[in-house]
Amino acid sequence: MRAVTIVDDNRLEVTEHPDPVPGTGEVLVRVRAAGLNGADLIQVKGLYPAPPGSPPDIPGLEFAGEVVALGPSARRFAVGDRVMAVVGGGGQAELAVAHERMLMRVPDAVRWVEAGGFPETFTTAHDALFTQAGLRMGERLLIHGAAGGVGVAAVQLAVRAGARVTGTVRSERLREKVQALGAEAIDPAEFTDAGRFDVILELVGAPNLAGNLAALATRGRIVVIGHAAGSTATVDLLQLMRSRGSIMSSTLRARPLEEKAVCARRVEAEVLPWLAGGNIHVPVAASFPLVDAERAYQRFAAGDKFGKVVIEVVPAD
Amino acid sequence: MRAVTIVDDNRLEVTEHPDPVPGTGEVLVRVRAAGLNGADLIQVKGLYPAPPGSPPDIPGLEFAGEVVALGPSARRFAVGDRVMAVVGGGGQAELAVAHERMLMRVPDAVRWVEAGGFPETFTTAHDALFTQAGLRMGERLLIHGAAGGVGVAAVQLAVRAGARVTGTVRSERLREKVQALGAEAIDPAEFTDAGRFDVILELVGAPNLAGNLAALATRGRIVVIGHAAGSTATVDLLQLMRSRGSIMSSTLRARPLEEKAVCARRVEAEVLPWLAGGNIHVPVAASFPLVDAERAYQRFAAGDKFGKVVIEVVPAD
Repeated sequence: MRAVTIVDDNRLEVTEHPDPVPGTGEVLVRVRAAGLNGADLIQVKGLYPAPPGSPPDIPGLEFAGEVVALGPSARRFAVGDRVMAVVGGGGQAELAVAHERMLMRVPDAVRWVEAGGFPETFTTAHDALFTQAGLRMGERLLIHGAAGGVGVAAVQLAVRAGARVTGTVRSERLREKVQALGAEAIDPAEFTDAGRFDVILELVGAPNLAGNLAALATRGRIVVIGHAAGSTATVDLLQLMRSRGSIMSSTLRARPLEEKAVCARRVEAEVLPWLAGGNIHVPVAASFPLVDAERAYQRFAAGDKFGKVVIEVVPAD
Repeated sequence: MRAVTIVDDNRLEVTEHPDPVPGTGEVLVRVRAAGLNGADLIQVKGLYPAPPGSPPDIPGLEFAGEVVALGPSARRFAVGDRVMAVVGGGGQAELAVAHERMLMRVPDAVRWVEAGGFPETFTTAHDALFTQAGLRMGERLLIHGAAGGVGVAAVQLAVRAGARVTGTVRSERLREKVQALGAEAIDPAEFTDAGRFDVILELVGAPNLAGNLAALATRGRIVVIGHAAGSTATVDLLQLMRSRGSIMSSTLRARPLEEKAVCARRVEAEVLPWLAGGNIHVPVAASFPLVDAERAYQRFAAGDKFGKVVIEVVPAD
């Protein structure tokens, strides 16, 4: 099979690899589409190696495609089923394997290009907002960096769950698109601590943390997912005490199978019905064929996009 | 009635006050004993005013005594019942009022001097360890400052709940006493991040936070209750992300009645059976009669004590 490959000098090429073989409980999938994520770019630079058990040189944290073979004991899906999954790596390839407990069914109405860009950002956003921060109906949510991949997923999930959502977005053009999802979208330069937020999803980095603490409602929760703007924060613990707040940070990729599978089950139960009904969307900013993977990465790195960059993988047969 | 009173120049005197009158749902208690807490000393210095509804000039966050009168609608207790409570202030007096939902029954075997020093530290420790951090059997707990009032309560509760407890204690003499409670007690100078702790209870302050982050197990929780050594912390968010950890901070005093009452119900259900059975103790480092309140405060401020400093209030009649 062909796959996006990280070659020695931190460049990308599309090269031939042996077909992966599904192990016990695993499923072999012919990949139709595979989204890009920020972590892929860091991995290509050599700064974020794949976890043990994932191909070290094939990036890709998510994919969608058709089941082509089942490993021993795998029984949740049948050959031909349309599935998608978060994986530790190896998604940007013509074939990929995943444990059957990680796979979710792709709803009929969802196109491959959308399905390929769904799992990672929606699972990350769902886990951060609901499992970590326990976001509830009626609560006020602030999302710093609301136009990015996780941001667009988080806005949609939080609006759907009845939260009152404010997002900061630097680009005026993208601000309108975030507003169209049902959030209040503001220029980060205009952010003040006048509001009081029950949950703050931090997708930008440490420089925002002092302002976040000042804007935290009583019993507020700050979840830090993005660190691109810096990771060393100064925290006033008395301020945290006054709000009786908490600061948490997390990543999906390092988790063991059972914890990732729990995330997948929650997304299946709580998000897929809305995706299937057309109430939640995967905006695709751009898509590229597998052979143009390097251009896909360049588009992702250029920023100022709304939604996902997706590689549409040419079928292997 | 007489009460410990904060007079104009931040000194303490024992002076006469009008007897308090129990309002709707409240209970009037003849105080037998009232513990001192760190917050009292800060309040005397004028830096931590009592919350609205509490006497501004009478310190005391906890007391134990006998019910002498019931306000309208109060029906949980009868005159003569032995009760104790956390209050927003006013506990160090011959008479005090508390809402009946805040009161807990004093077990028969518990002496007044112990009961007067029980509510604040045990409720704070229970809330921090179990409600905030969700400490579970088998988990490793680190307590920074384990020989103080909250520390001694936390060690006993955590050992009882089946956690594996390590406490840092500066004084070698007090280290032995903490060890006798079932914890491993170490010199803070010997603390390294070699261990991995599921929960860290920070009773000292911000300077410990970097070491705490390094010593945090996967999905670890840091709860900051004490800030005496400083409150401005530097937090490496990538380190927090790698452990998928959280940092929280809280205070009981600022909470509304319903939240404090929930804490009281949990302590009743989960801690009082062990206090009644003699499995949990309130070590009393020193006790003083009401007229010697200033000496009690001096003893508290001097430190190097194991357990509570308690004012034994002379009965009003």
